Amino acid sequence: MRIAVVAPSCTLKRDAAEQVRALVADRRDCELVIHPQCFLSDGHFAGADGARLAALREVMADPAVDAVWFARGGYGSNRIAEAVLADLPDSARGKTYMGYSDAGFLQAGFYKAGLEVVWGPMPQDVLRSGGEAAVTRALDWLVRRDSSALEPALEAPAMAFNLTVLSNLLGTSIEPDFAGVDLLIEEVSEQLYRIDRTMFHVTASDNVRQARRIRLGRVSDVLENDPAFAIDEAAIVEQWCARSGIVFGGRADIGHDALNRVVPFGSQFR
Amino acid sequence: MRIAVVAPSCTLKRDAAEQVRALVADRRDCELVIHPQCFLSDGHFAGADGARLAALREVMADPAVDAVWFARGGYGSNRIAEAVLADLPDSARGKTYMGYSDAGFLQAGFYKAGLEVVWGPMPQDVLRSGGEAAVTRALDWLVRRDSSALEPALEAPAMAFNLTVLSNLLGTSIEPDFAGVDLLIEEVSEQLYRIDRTMFHVTASDNVRQARRIRLGRVSDVLENDPAFAIDEAAIVEQWCARSGIVFGGRADIGHDALNRVVPFGSQFR
Repeated sequence: MRIAVVAPSCTLKRDAAEQVRALVADRRDCELVIHPQCFLSDGHFAGADGARLAALREVMADPAVDAVWFARGGYGSNRIAEAVLADLPDSARGKTYMGYSDAGFLQAGFYKAGLEVVWGPMPQDVLRSGGEAAVTRALDWLVRRDSSALEPALEAPAMAFNLTVLSNLLGTSIEPDFAGVDLLIEEVSEQLYRIDRTMFHVTASDNVRQARRIRLGRVSDVLENDPAFAIDEAAIVEQWCARSGIVFGGRADIGHDALNRVVPFGSQFR
Repeated sequence: MRIAVVAPSCTLKRDAAEQVRALVADRRDCELVIHPQCFLSDGHFAGADGARLAALREVMADPAVDAVWFARGGYGSNRIAEAVLADLPDSARGKTYMGYSDAGFLQAGFYKAGLEVVWGPMPQDVLRSGGEAAVTRALDWLVRRDSSALEPALEAPAMAFNLTVLSNLLGTSIEPDFAGVDLLIEEVSEQLYRIDRTMFHVTASDNVRQARRIRLGRVSDVLENDPAFAIDEAAIVEQWCARSGIVFGGRADIGHDALNRVVPFGSQFR
């Protein structure tokens, strides 16, 4: 199993790369190729759009690559999503694409294009407290489809998105079909009023309203709401589900943390 | 001219109410009725959804009210927009509805429903440095359609929105038709990466792509982007306009500040 790491959003930290390399060397069941593009820096991004796009295209077109692992989130994958999808090489199929957070823009478009997409921990997560376990969980899924890596209550077909990413891809060319899907969402570093506003937007979508249900992962590092919002994130999501006729399926074991579990998109692993 | 003030989003400060009352008393060309709901507080909001909705319905149904002036922004008008639109009284027509920022959710839906909507300063703006001029500008428009209050390069039909509000109303039942319209946008208290992401979302909309052009108001209180984003807000908006085939019409004289000008929606003042 040959796993290529590219960074379509922000720059991968060298420390994280070294730690993940060491972890993979110890396992001896896979080979990791960290593309040098991961360490580029251009303002906010891991290199200019052209550099990030070229690296992504390169690993997608490489028949020797079995899985593409997004290095980390941040912001920027949406800026190259349309271009990479306009020109998909045949060898892009048959690979697994894993990541979460900002990588959701690519994952949405890739899933729509019929590629095999999986929500799961990323190399940069190794720097979190408990991060080795997160990265090991991701690799266990990539290398041997270890079902203990999966979100424990998962029912296929499913998809998982960061809520803000989901909101920003609605109405764009990369919006996938949510009909009949368990839609798992999570959030990080937002005020509760923003989460409420984003839920208004997301649950107004006719497409999202076709989901079988919405399940809520962790909402972490909630920024101060002044004045206090009065209800918590679960009540917010429940309220908007009720208003829009979407079933609220309770909590899910995903989030921007080391405990984040794996969610294969769609029905491919049913 | 009888002007009713209600607060569909956050609580109006008492100081602001007193200063605007004094200003109106001095003018002697209009009467101001500040609804007691403006001073309610329920968590984030100026009263619970039901209280804000009831006050808004009351002034919209009152035939003695000539203009409804939204007290301030913040967040929350989207939570009552659908309900108030489901049940519009006849006397809601023939009034002017003025405000900006979070009031944009109501303004979008009201404009779509055929009501007379105007972007402009709000009572709470009186607390800004130079705020008396802002409030006077709003009143000059409401009371005597003073054209010096208007955004100086305005070409009808036009609309104006806070960018984040615009993004969050796309795909909802309150989304108006942007075909042929000059769409003025502005932003406050966001990081540049968020503005870039929101522009991706907004300019992907087939409806927004029918706009005659996009013009960019002020982007103020920009939060720190780590690392620095490399391009500024005007370059961001220009890039996304170019990518999506929308004409970029340059800067506009609106924003979350005391210089904010008046933008009547649509063609009613052509």
